[in-house]
Amino acid sequence: MARSARRLAALDEQASEPVVGAAFRGRSCLVTGGLGFIGSNLALRLAREGADVTVVDAMYPRHGGNRFNLDDAGGADITVIEADLGDPEALAAAARAEVVFNLAGQVSHVDSMTSPIFDLDVNTRSHVALLEGLRRDNPDVTIVFTSTRQLFGKPRYLPVDEDHPVAPVDVNGITKHATEQFHLLYGETYGLRASVVRLTNVYGPRQRLRDDFQGFLPIFIRRALCDEPLLVFGDGAQQRDCLYVDDVVDCLLRVASAPDAAGEVFNVGNDEHLSLREIAEAIVAAAGSGRVEFAAWPPDRDAIDIGSYFGDSSKAKRTLEWEPATRFADGIRMTIDFYRQHREWYL
Amino acid sequence: MARSARRLAALDEQASEPVVGAAFRGRSCLVTGGLGFIGSNLALRLAREGADVTVVDAMYPRHGGNRFNLDDAGGADITVIEADLGDPEALAAAARAEVVFNLAGQVSHVDSMTSPIFDLDVNTRSHVALLEGLRRDNPDVTIVFTSTRQLFGKPRYLPVDEDHPVAPVDVNGITKHATEQFHLLYGETYGLRASVVRLTNVYGPRQRLRDDFQGFLPIFIRRALCDEPLLVFGDGAQQRDCLYVDDVVDCLLRVASAPDAAGEVFNVGNDEHLSLREIAEAIVAAAGSGRVEFAAWPPDRDAIDIGSYFGDSSKAKRTLEWEPATRFADGIRMTIDFYRQHREWYL
Repeated sequence: MARSARRLAALDEQASEPVVGAAFRGRSCLVTGGLGFIGSNLALRLAREGADVTVVDAMYPRHGGNRFNLDDAGGADITVIEADLGDPEALAAAARAEVVFNLAGQVSHVDSMTSPIFDLDVNTRSHVALLEGLRRDNPDVTIVFTSTRQLFGKPRYLPVDEDHPVAPVDVNGITKHATEQFHLLYGETYGLRASVVRLTNVYGPRQRLRDDFQGFLPIFIRRALCDEPLLVFGDGAQQRDCLYVDDVVDCLLRVASAPDAAGEVFNVGNDEHLSLREIAEAIVAAAGSGRVEFAAWPPDRDAIDIGSYFGDSSKAKRTLEWEPATRFADGIRMTIDFYRQHREWYL
Repeated sequence: MARSARRLAALDEQASEPVVGAAFRGRSCLVTGGLGFIGSNLALRLAREGADVTVVDAMYPRHGGNRFNLDDAGGADITVIEADLGDPEALAAAARAEVVFNLAGQVSHVDSMTSPIFDLDVNTRSHVALLEGLRRDNPDVTIVFTSTRQLFGKPRYLPVDEDHPVAPVDVNGITKHATEQFHLLYGETYGLRASVVRLTNVYGPRQRLRDDFQGFLPIFIRRALCDEPLLVFGDGAQQRDCLYVDDVVDCLLRVASAPDAAGEVFNVGNDEHLSLREIAEAIVAAAGSGRVEFAAWPPDRDAIDIGSYFGDSSKAKRTLEWEPATRFADGIRMTIDFYRQHREWYL
């Protein structure tokens, strides 16, 4: 564990740590989904900045929660509550928080189709319970909700800005969009300082790699680490914008701090656009294992292919003075290093 | 009861009964929310057309369900199941239906804000359970979901067509919109013939008048019948399009029959635009009791006033060959007559 701690610390030093984090020193912050991928990276960063950090995570099986993600917070004290957002102990923690980073959610699009009621319960119903608790007990709170670019469906134009029509192609897109609207409604109606961040594909340390339910990046990374083929459908020319998790964390801190962020929706993507083929090749190069293989589109995938996607983040850049700092080639190298060191917790 | 039956029959003869209804003879139809306002009018019409009619209604207290609404079906046999949409007996009925008219829902905007979880459960969660049952057991079904113009919020332009942005101003608008999307998704993904009808303000026999939670029309009607003041805020110049329930029923039958309706959303309103002042005056004139009074906007109402609203129904007219047949002055007279005769069940 001591060895692991040193390695985590060494890894963390590589990441950019702009001055924005200092604003959280001594402040009471709640991170929901805080044992998950983005949530744990955010909680660790907040702890390093001297914030008073509590995380709530329901630890639903087969989802992103992983106790190892916070196992070593470099001596910082992070309070962990294993509960659903709507449970009394979670609501009590929310009532005490100055800032709620509301990241809890079911993120698998495949699972959302096979278990739509579960998706609705976890991605919407629990959040309404949280918002009800906040409006009753803590209406001055700042709350940042992480949503997904998936709710845009197949883009009508590129890059996709905040005004692009919402056209979900799966249950997850519907439930996440409804929950965005609940956050904004509670802001409008009850004065909560609520913001919504629509994230593109995120990668980095502490993501669940164990199965194929979490999107193409963790699938590619696991296959490379296991020296298996990375399957690219068609010619792999469709483009994506990927974000390293530290850049997302930096963005979320800025949303919570920026004076003009309340009531706003931000598309958060990356101007570095890579084809799926380039992404797969970069992962194989960083890992030194795995190989890229091309295959025809399977018929069931064809129906849900959205073509290229990349977001227009100019509103986030303007309002938050945010800019992603990590190029994919660098981020993926740090990512591969992390999973090589902590393989048993993720693979 | 015999007297009541004759009166109901006499009333029904006044309504237009176009040929579209004949298409339902002998067909198995399920009406959810079938003890409620629009649902019961639809169920009675289907029964008269010779359809095999089952209704499901959860009979939640203080909502639209009223056993008297189907008490007298003119000798026709309507099967009534008191259950939530997601309950096994409701799902079994849905599995047998050729057509599901999915009208069940919590319609009070005020209640949706005070009980958001209940609204989400009744207006979305139960419907997902129904759709899951249908895709599993009855994927060839035709399903017509009734939604609300309320999800447009304050209109950005008039008349409001189907492309107008959705911007809910309350919980009810969010949950109804999510459920629209679930219907369309299940159509796209699993082949259900699903359509969505966004209704404007509807009035007519069999509506709940007992309290102030169901919108301005039933409030005005009750106050006129009770010889109380009809309160109009400001100068009452804001316009609305109102639909007589028989015209809505006719539209729903056409949506279920039209070859091009599957996968489509229809705004269903009326080209007869009346100011709130004119509506109140017409109700007082028809009732011969009550009086119109003007009052300043109360501060809490001011925030949610949406100004004028009327819908563009040209898509429904074109696709469904539908046209509302009842002018407000006529519809409101039939409505007042009905409640005069059956006052004890509604007031």
